[in-house]
Amino acid sequence: MAKDKEKSKKRKYVYYFGGKKAEGEAGMKNLLGGKGANLAEMVNIGLPVPAGFTITTEVCTAYYDNNKKYPSELKKQVLDALKMTEAEMDAKFGDKKNPLLVSVRSGARSSMPGMMETVLNVGLNNETREGLIKKTNNARFVYDSQRRLIQMYSDVVMEKAAGIETEEGKGVRVQLEHELEKMKKARKAKDDTDLTADDLKALIEIYKKKVKQVLGKPFPEDPMEQLWGAIGAVFQSWMGRRAIAYRRIESIPDNWGTAVTVQSMVFGNMGDTSATGVAFTRNPATGDNYFYGEWLPNAQGEDVVAGIRTPNPINEIGKSEHTGHLKSLEKAMPKAYKQLDAIQKSLGIHYHDMLDIEFTIQDQKLYMLQCRIGKRNGTAAVKMALDMLKEKLIDEKTAVMRVAPSQLEELLFPLLDPKAEVKAGALCKGLPAGPGGAVGKIVLTAADAVEAVKKDKSAKVILVREETNPEDIEGMRAAQAVLTARGGMTSHAALVARGWGKCCIVGAADVKIDFTTRTVHIKGEVLKEGDWISLNGTKGTVYKGQLSTVSATENQDLVKFMKIIDKYRRLKVRTNADTPEDAKKAREFGAEGIGLFRTEHMFYGKHSEKPLFFLRKMIISSTEAERRAALDELFPYVKKDVKGTLIAMDGLPVTFRTLDPPLHEFVPEQRAEREKLARALKISMSQFRERADKLHEVNPMMGHRGVRLGITYPEITEMQIRAIFEATAELLIAGKKPFPEIMIPVTCIETELAHQYEIFNKVYPEVCKKFKLKEIPHLIGTMIEIPRAALAAAKIAEYAQFFSFGTNDLTQMTFGFSRDDVSSFMGDYLSKKILKVDPFQILDQDTVGELMKIACDRGRKTRPGIKLGICGEHGGEPSSVEFCHRLGLTYVSCSPFRVPIARLAAAQAAIRDLPAGKDPASKKNKKAKSTGKIKSKKK
Amino acid sequence: MAKDKEKSKKRKYVYYFGGKKAEGEAGMKNLLGGKGANLAEMVNIGLPVPAGFTITTEVCTAYYDNNKKYPSELKKQVLDALKMTEAEMDAKFGDKKNPLLVSVRSGARSSMPGMMETVLNVGLNNETREGLIKKTNNARFVYDSQRRLIQMYSDVVMEKAAGIETEEGKGVRVQLEHELEKMKKARKAKDDTDLTADDLKALIEIYKKKVKQVLGKPFPEDPMEQLWGAIGAVFQSWMGRRAIAYRRIESIPDNWGTAVTVQSMVFGNMGDTSATGVAFTRNPATGDNYFYGEWLPNAQGEDVVAGIRTPNPINEIGKSEHTGHLKSLEKAMPKAYKQLDAIQKSLGIHYHDMLDIEFTIQDQKLYMLQCRIGKRNGTAAVKMALDMLKEKLIDEKTAVMRVAPSQLEELLFPLLDPKAEVKAGALCKGLPAGPGGAVGKIVLTAADAVEAVKKDKSAKVILVREETNPEDIEGMRAAQAVLTARGGMTSHAALVARGWGKCCIVGAADVKIDFTTRTVHIKGEVLKEGDWISLNGTKGTVYKGQLSTVSATENQDLVKFMKIIDKYRRLKVRTNADTPEDAKKAREFGAEGIGLFRTEHMFYGKHSEKPLFFLRKMIISSTEAERRAALDELFPYVKKDVKGTLIAMDGLPVTFRTLDPPLHEFVPEQRAEREKLARALKISMSQFRERADKLHEVNPMMGHRGVRLGITYPEITEMQIRAIFEATAELLIAGKKPFPEIMIPVTCIETELAHQYEIFNKVYPEVCKKFKLKEIPHLIGTMIEIPRAALAAAKIAEYAQFFSFGTNDLTQMTFGFSRDDVSSFMGDYLSKKILKVDPFQILDQDTVGELMKIACDRGRKTRPGIKLGICGEHGGEPSSVEFCHRLGLTYVSCSPFRVPIARLAAAQAAIRDLPAGKDPASKKNKKAKSTGKIKSKKK
Repeated sequence: MAKDKEKSKKRKYVYYFGGKKAEGEAGMKNLLGGKGANLAEMVNIGLPVPAGFTITTEVCTAYYDNNKKYPSELKKQVLDALKMTEAEMDAKFGDKKNPLLVSVRSGARSSMPGMMETVLNVGLNNETREGLIKKTNNARFVYDSQRRLIQMYSDVVMEKAAGIETEEGKGVRVQLEHELEKMKKARKAKDDTDLTADDLKALIEIYKKKVKQVLGKPFPEDPMEQLWGAIGAVFQSWMGRRAIAYRRIESIPDNWGTAVTVQSMVFGNMGDTSATGVAFTRNPATGDNYFYGEWLPNAQGEDVVAGIRTPNPINEIGKSEHTGHLKSLEKAMPKAYKQLDAIQKSLGIHYHDMLDIEFTIQDQKLYMLQCRIGKRNGTAAVKMALDMLKEKLIDEKTAVMRVAPSQLEELLFPLLDPKAEVKAGALCKGLPAGPGGAVGKIVLTAADAVEAVKKDKSAKVILVREETNPEDIEGMRAAQAVLTARGGMTSHAALVARGWGKCCIVGAADVKIDFTTRTVHIKGEVLKEGDWISLNGTKGTVYKGQLSTVSATENQDLVKFMKIIDKYRRLKVRTNADTPEDAKKAREFGAEGIGLFRTEHMFYGKHSEKPLFFLRKMIISSTEAERRAALDELFPYVKKDVKGTLIAMDGLPVTFRTLDPPLHEFVPEQRAEREKLARALKISMSQFRERADKLHEVNPMMGHRGVRLGITYPEITEMQIRAIFEATAELLIAGKKPFPEIMIPVTCIETELAHQYEIFNKVYPEVCKKFKLKEIPHLIGTMIEIPRAALAAAKIAEYAQFFSFGTNDLTQMTFGFSRDDVSSFMGDYLSKKILKVDPFQILDQDTVGELMKIACDRGRKTRPGIKLGICGEHGGEPSSVEFCHRLGLTYVSCSPFRVPIARLAAAQAAIRDLPAGKDPASKKNKKAKSTGKIKSKKK
Repeated sequence: MAKDKEKSKKRKYVYYFGGKKAEGEAGMKNLLGGKGANLAEMVNIGLPVPAGFTITTEVCTAYYDNNKKYPSELKKQVLDALKMTEAEMDAKFGDKKNPLLVSVRSGARSSMPGMMETVLNVGLNNETREGLIKKTNNARFVYDSQRRLIQMYSDVVMEKAAGIETEEGKGVRVQLEHELEKMKKARKAKDDTDLTADDLKALIEIYKKKVKQVLGKPFPEDPMEQLWGAIGAVFQSWMGRRAIAYRRIESIPDNWGTAVTVQSMVFGNMGDTSATGVAFTRNPATGDNYFYGEWLPNAQGEDVVAGIRTPNPINEIGKSEHTGHLKSLEKAMPKAYKQLDAIQKSLGIHYHDMLDIEFTIQDQKLYMLQCRIGKRNGTAAVKMALDMLKEKLIDEKTAVMRVAPSQLEELLFPLLDPKAEVKAGALCKGLPAGPGGAVGKIVLTAADAVEAVKKDKSAKVILVREETNPEDIEGMRAAQAVLTARGGMTSHAALVARGWGKCCIVGAADVKIDFTTRTVHIKGEVLKEGDWISLNGTKGTVYKGQLSTVSATENQDLVKFMKIIDKYRRLKVRTNADTPEDAKKAREFGAEGIGLFRTEHMFYGKHSEKPLFFLRKMIISSTEAERRAALDELFPYVKKDVKGTLIAMDGLPVTFRTLDPPLHEFVPEQRAEREKLARALKISMSQFRERADKLHEVNPMMGHRGVRLGITYPEITEMQIRAIFEATAELLIAGKKPFPEIMIPVTCIETELAHQYEIFNKVYPEVCKKFKLKEIPHLIGTMIEIPRAALAAAKIAEYAQFFSFGTNDLTQMTFGFSRDDVSSFMGDYLSKKILKVDPFQILDQDTVGELMKIACDRGRKTRPGIKLGICGEHGGEPSSVEFCHRLGLTYVSCSPFRVPIARLAAAQAAIRDLPAGKDPASKKNKKAKSTGKIKSKKK
């Protein structure tokens, strides 16, 4: 304890920035948050940044660990930094004559747009405002700033952060807005700007009265009280409901904490020579290399991103059909624009990346308020990576790391069918904030979107809103797409949708929402809740009805990018496919084999009537003779499917899992079907019923399935092995290169494999003899999907030439969560934070992962170089793929659509894994790679 | 390879014994088998043993490992040992004038009575017999021996070991028996002994002809060929069907192998001055300390144990009501008896144990053929252990080790109600071969017994047979008891039943079985298959009908014995009990607390109508308000049961598991019940149906249960915690010493516990305040029954003050075997040797055990001295208890009935665990023990 205290005394909690020097720099994001670190960096490279200081994320963590108390040394360090800020800005916080105002903002390691609180104009009161009026000679601006301070502070600090709960619509913010509206009505003012300085001065006193009335406490006039209140409110907002929800979706740990940046205020709302804006050093939606942004004259920072006014394009090149009539900053303030353009260029070069910047022009003078790595969608991410590589701004490895695997999804998203678009004709246009096409039924609230998907997982809804706000985040997640009437490309909706790669159109001004009738009016057309609409998020066009979609056309950038990433990958990527058609499709997506072919899935398709009938006959059989008869009938169908799949994957390995059907599911319900089966088996209906009842299981997932069936009925395994080897033999004779891998499911004891191996030992030589072949290439292995199998891997590897982790079932058994039933409590588990993520979506590396590691280690000990793969759904989930890379698996296998995503995740994992200076794409490493290949074939 | 060969050259495969010196000794059982080692020992202590040699078990293992070929050096070593035998016995194997005959017998490490083959009289042929006739001057005996050799050899060596399969009843043994019967008929002979020497001489030639005809090969006349054939047959029989079945039941590993002992023949069938017998140095059924055995004049060894003739008692003291009329060896051959009695006494002292001996008297001269530790039933085991301790033959630790935990079961077995016995009157009497009472329906074949129990696990059948043979072993296992018409106390049935502690009556001569009518005739009474009979195995009495049973009366020996074992025990033994009544009963059995009280089981009993109704109401509730109302109604019932149980266990800990009901099972099926519930909840029947349907789960075992319910409906946990603490508080105030331990089930993530802990944090201080108590003693912990919980034990131990392993579910999830459904394949798994034992009965130490070990290690790391227990069914299974001891658990918990068994298993584990010379019952170790106790209470 004593030591801890000593340590905390020495610890630096506050980092100053300003003038030409900052105590921090860009690399200190973990400590200073993204905002604080980048402000420091901008100061260091000589850009105009209002001075200030950052309180570290450690204070946030200490605050929550220590029962919401600050470290004792914090106060002094803040006051010291404040003094330096005052010196730099030549003004004094709380001074009546020459007051310094500050903003107080949050800043986490990774951006959480709109999730946490900000307070502006801190330091204003009835005394300091007089000094400021004198200094700026602009009373109206000062009163307006004070009015905004009271409004923001009373809401954020006095109500929210203090945890005061008010009735819906009775919060202080709404009440103050009522007073503003009342004043505007009384003065017959149309806009806020129509109110005079005196009006605002009067409003301030009305506000203060109202605050005291609603919250029972006076608005604090003491600037220092304001400052500490605002700092506390930011820390408090880290644990706010919205912030927690966002972190859950983005998998950001709670203990990262937020930093607080206190910065001297500059004002974009000091009249028409002032402005504020947000811009990107390249276009974040397309990746095109030009300065792209939005600005508003006479406005404060939050106005642009809040989406309340549709902002102007920053320059001429950025003008769209849609914004062509608005004045650009380039034209309105050419001098400031030129300076800004130079700054953005230098920032792009300095950071080697696309940046998202915020600036304010106060009376013609430009200030940089923020710069951070800009969010971009998948298309833009790929294009920028390739462009910057070409421009030699970044190297290949960096280019590979620049695209998040999840972003690739967008590039693979379906688009609206262009012909259908022409035929339908656009209803209206908005800003193309998120690419791809989306079709869905209109919902008007985020809650409705969540509800619809909760009711029906495959429900397709489009969230139509005036504008979105952080409260809508879960509804946006649930919806296919988002359409807003207001807001620009940097509005909340656009930022969030872009981050997720979700189809999104913002600022579609023709969209009018009528909540009383629950309808959407677009240019005279009236759409009801639940009506279908279609969005083209790449162009920004909205259509009535349910347009058809087409799959993403060949994207040349993507092809180029995938070629680069494949140089860095060590993990092979296979696909899970159950038909020759799927196999073909997956190969186009770059699959290097099939990791899971589920024999029983051939019975689900359209053309499966006959094989399904034979399968049912087999299942309902009660003697070996009956079963063998049904299996003989089934044989040609299985063989045909096996053969087709081997052809589609010629030259690549195909893993056939032996039959693992949920027996009772294959017993037909309809009387006609039952009678037909009974006739075929020559049994009575009561005998049929008796046999069907016998197949019922209390917990089928842990019942008579997988290899357990193959042990009770060895003839089933025999039929399948024979079909696989006969198909392979015929292809070999035809000059093809088939490579089947036979995989036994649900194994938990090595003796199970030994038993199945004996069947192989009988059938294999028979087939070789029949086709006059010396050998037929193959492997025999097992799934590791039962906890016991992982633990007994050393013994199992005596028989298995490969392991394939069935992480769906392994997760199921490890957690004891039935996948069919988990929905009854998974919602509670996520919302009550019992679980951070759904372990069926993201591999639980701690435990399921430990079992995998145990299995790998033990399997390798018995059989060095054993082939190891994964075929659970996690095989296409990026963080799980990275884990598989670290485990040293041979391959991951995932659904065809996720193959490119897995390829990228694998490449990034390999790059992260490199010792500094090593390049796996270099010749030397290529050699190492191919050695790995040989190794993995050793048996 | 070359090295291996060299090694095998040096290896000693054959150990000679004879005269005054043997190469082996009693400690070499693993190598020489029990028989070989003890023969060597008897030679070494100067007893009269016919010379011979033993081929080691290593040869058997090598034989099977090496494709049924012998090590190259074996032949020479056998011939060398044979020469030494010839020298000692002053005769020559295969010599025409002075031939040596030998027996060839199996001998495994642990006795497998009747499971493997024996061949006697090896070395006889038409030439050597002439020398033997001259030497013995007894042609009839020699021809009879040769006749027996052919009969035995052709069956065991030429047919069985060669793997020749003949039709049922067409095997060579049956065919030769036909010839014998034919000859007897022709000579009008009643018994075998009525045939003359010439008859037998003629029969030998008939036999040889028949052998060639049936098996297509002549009977080998070459003595050396006979010898090697017999040796091979013994090795072959190790992998025979019967031997494998026996080993599976007894958990004997296949790779132990059998030794082969070749020993000079001596003859008990050389006339009335010859005899053979089997005896025990103490009575194996009662434990009484007197020489007890059976003998037959003019017979060969196998005749006594085969049960073909009911043998005579060996001495006067051993005569029973039943055998009083037969002549004892003591009277018939007083000199030989005196010598035998001296030998048995010296053996008992030499071995410090009760021995089972075999002897032969050849023309007045006594030879010892075998001695081994004698099998005994539980009653006898306890009595002998106590007696020998008193006699200072053994020390306390040895006494504890002398009773197998499973043997205790017999002592706890029910007995027939003595009053009912008097009333019913015995139908007949037999030898009391296995104690206790049994009631069941008559079955006449082993297969019927197996079938009956397969159909209905709780079926009670009694196997009634003329005599049993090794083929009957599985049927004997399945039956409640065995009743045979023939055989003595050392017959097959008696030996096997005694080993298992099963009720058994043998040699009930009045029992006549008529297979054609499937009836049993006993003194004029005709019983049909399926009729009820009752056996008193302690007295040997048989009753008609289904007599009532009473639980074992207080056994003073047992009380004394249990007192001794408790000195050595480190593991505590608790019980699983769900009602105050169970708790009381378990305490009488020595339970030191309750390890598992399943709250939901109080709803199953007779007097549970009201609480069951409230529970159902709670389950069918759909709002928190409805649920709270039902919980309020439930509260007093839960509290009452908790209180009653705490009173029954006053001063001892009671672990209450929070509710873990299979929800859908508690939804009533009957319309009336449903309507009553709907009325109580004020909902419509269709609403009721909808809610009930929602509770249906596909895999309920992995569904919404245990702590998952407590998280979705915290009010359920709250009610239970409140009930437990209020009950405890009231008892504390009443001056009692209640100690509740609250156990959360189905936990798999530490956050689940954190969540439930918050409920405790709310309720606990409320109850303390209500009852004005500063604190209420308690622990809060969790079950470890989900694989994930074991792996995450380090984090879970941050919240849990104790772990209790729920090995039923842990086994279920680790194997992925649903306990409700496993019967559909467990039979195949055991019979196909996929599994050696049912993992739900005997803990799978390799994997489930590894998870337990992981959990213990990690739990202790977080919380040193964490209390660790087990409450799965394995907690009462001896080998699993020993494993728990090695893991260092604090306690095991099992059903009340198994508490004494677990206590003994725990004591034996502790003794096995001792470094040589340490005595845990000594004062020094008692101190160590109590330190352990304090440790386990640290939290």
